[in-house]
Amino acid sequence: MYGAGDVRVEQVPDPSIQLPTDAVVRLVRACICGSDLHPYHSLPASGRGNPMGHELIGVVEAVGSQVTSVRPGDFVIAPFAVSDNTCVFCREGLHTACLHGGWYGNPANGGLQAELSRIPLADGSLVKVPDVDPATADEGLLASLLTLSDVYLTGWHAAVQGRVAPGRTVTVIGDGAVGLSAVLASRQLGAERIILMGRHRDRTDLGVEWGATDVVAERGPEGIARVLDLTDGEGSHVVLEAVGLMPAYEQAHGVVRPGGVISRVGVPQYESAPIGFGSLFGKNAALTGGPAPVRAYLEGALAQVLAGEIDPGRVFDRSVGLDDVPAGYAAMDARQALKVMITA
Amino acid sequence: MYGAGDVRVEQVPDPSIQLPTDAVVRLVRACICGSDLHPYHSLPASGRGNPMGHELIGVVEAVGSQVTSVRPGDFVIAPFAVSDNTCVFCREGLHTACLHGGWYGNPANGGLQAELSRIPLADGSLVKVPDVDPATADEGLLASLLTLSDVYLTGWHAAVQGRVAPGRTVTVIGDGAVGLSAVLASRQLGAERIILMGRHRDRTDLGVEWGATDVVAERGPEGIARVLDLTDGEGSHVVLEAVGLMPAYEQAHGVVRPGGVISRVGVPQYESAPIGFGSLFGKNAALTGGPAPVRAYLEGALAQVLAGEIDPGRVFDRSVGLDDVPAGYAAMDARQALKVMITA
Repeated sequence: MYGAGDVRVEQVPDPSIQLPTDAVVRLVRACICGSDLHPYHSLPASGRGNPMGHELIGVVEAVGSQVTSVRPGDFVIAPFAVSDNTCVFCREGLHTACLHGGWYGNPANGGLQAELSRIPLADGSLVKVPDVDPATADEGLLASLLTLSDVYLTGWHAAVQGRVAPGRTVTVIGDGAVGLSAVLASRQLGAERIILMGRHRDRTDLGVEWGATDVVAERGPEGIARVLDLTDGEGSHVVLEAVGLMPAYEQAHGVVRPGGVISRVGVPQYESAPIGFGSLFGKNAALTGGPAPVRAYLEGALAQVLAGEIDPGRVFDRSVGLDDVPAGYAAMDARQALKVMITA
Repeated sequence: MYGAGDVRVEQVPDPSIQLPTDAVVRLVRACICGSDLHPYHSLPASGRGNPMGHELIGVVEAVGSQVTSVRPGDFVIAPFAVSDNTCVFCREGLHTACLHGGWYGNPANGGLQAELSRIPLADGSLVKVPDVDPATADEGLLASLLTLSDVYLTGWHAAVQGRVAPGRTVTVIGDGAVGLSAVLASRQLGAERIILMGRHRDRTDLGVEWGATDVVAERGPEGIARVLDLTDGEGSHVVLEAVGLMPAYEQAHGVVRPGGVISRVGVPQYESAPIGFGSLFGKNAALTGGPAPVRAYLEGALAQVLAGEIDPGRVFDRSVGLDDVPAGYAAMDARQALKVMITA
């Protein structure tokens, strides 16, 4: 990406093993994230392109001498953050705070919207998918596996941090792929009622299939009033904010119940926001969330996907080859596509 | 209070039973709260005084016809918020969100820094102290009972909301009476390490007696660096923010550990504050807290005080009669007194 709206496909040198803990992975499927749209709107123009992408399933092509958990030929999922899976934070399940970790989509680590990707700390940063041959696997299975690199487990993280549980009313703000994933995750965690705030009917229809009990198309004060109406004026025990823009946050503190929790997983496009007496403090509302430690949740969700218990891959409604990635960005930005898959 | 710095003692008509759920209580002890200093700094001058005070122990003088839990002559504690103790939020232990509740220190409900006070919803808003005669009780016992109207249980709420538990490192920001109470509460909840950020030696000495294992006198970036040093660079699992001013909040997000919790009980003197990627979101830090539902915690703490297990009344280091309340405000504002008790 060379700047807002300017995505290009370029031939660059193949990545190679630079450290003995690296692996190189060949693309099976990648995708475009809602968070990739933030720089697509705002990245200053530059003469040097920034590598993009942080969601990948692929086949290991090469490994460094110290890599023990995967080997060439293995079919793997790459969580969106690099982590060693051994440091104090990883051991606590907070892999996105890994002492030796990092992010993709920058010159140092490269981007995963690519034929080949270098994966640092491969023993921590890759998870092997057992007994699946990507060359013959069902497309739906591949799609669901791909969501375990970020989108589904980001929705899951929102729900876990928000302490979704039986008996809880959950409001999900945002009908993008993360918001719909948060609906699916909330249902998995036993939420009694799931109110989905979104105004794209084709998207909220999938949310309803996944467990949303109510859909609120209104936004702002009207949307807040509708959710309060739906909850006897009390508000929602849990609010999962899957957008990252200030109006979504304002809706969140407007609908949260006294003593409730707002859990954010949309990357905030603001630094300061209301948290004083009139927004959070006065009603003892809590705020939580952050970049999902996908790695911590991956084995459990992988078992569910392989068993056919969940189908989070249904968020993908368009597929492009690598050469057409710029068109994929444009389609997601124009909301012509919910989430775009990238094929090899 | 007629404006910033302008506290006056006035004769006003005695309060009376206005609703059958009211009680009238005669002062045994009241006190001045750190939160009373906020209007003492900023209240616009007005020709009409605002009644002050929300912490009281006293003897019931009269009750309305529907009051059943207390009767004239009972020695009672008044939590700082009015609550019916029966609504959906009260039943969940969030009495400061009571559907029929409210606050003292305003023209409608009056203030409790007074000889006589009208207590709305007396069955919910008063707790009887059994087997203590205030006329002959030990001064230390009266002081500790008085802290159960607000200050100790506000510190307790901070610690409970922050999920203080064995094995946790807790940083308490503020060496005022609430901060010191939060130290005592954290020790009760089994915190392994308690770092107290404060620079008034006489106050932090009491904090150390109550369980603080480290005292950090530095503030701002130096204070943050010291806490990070003390925690192997990781930060504090729990941060209890007992001030309410922006520099305290900034210290809080600076010292909180990734995945940790900031719990605020200092009434925020700001509405917006940093919560984006660089402050809370990036490290999955949570923010919680609010006005303490003292009523929910009162019975448990009352038993501890009566059994002599805790001595939270030690926060009082000055006592004034009602006529000298203005001098009490001045002493607390000048930090000549930690917390001022008001005697009958």
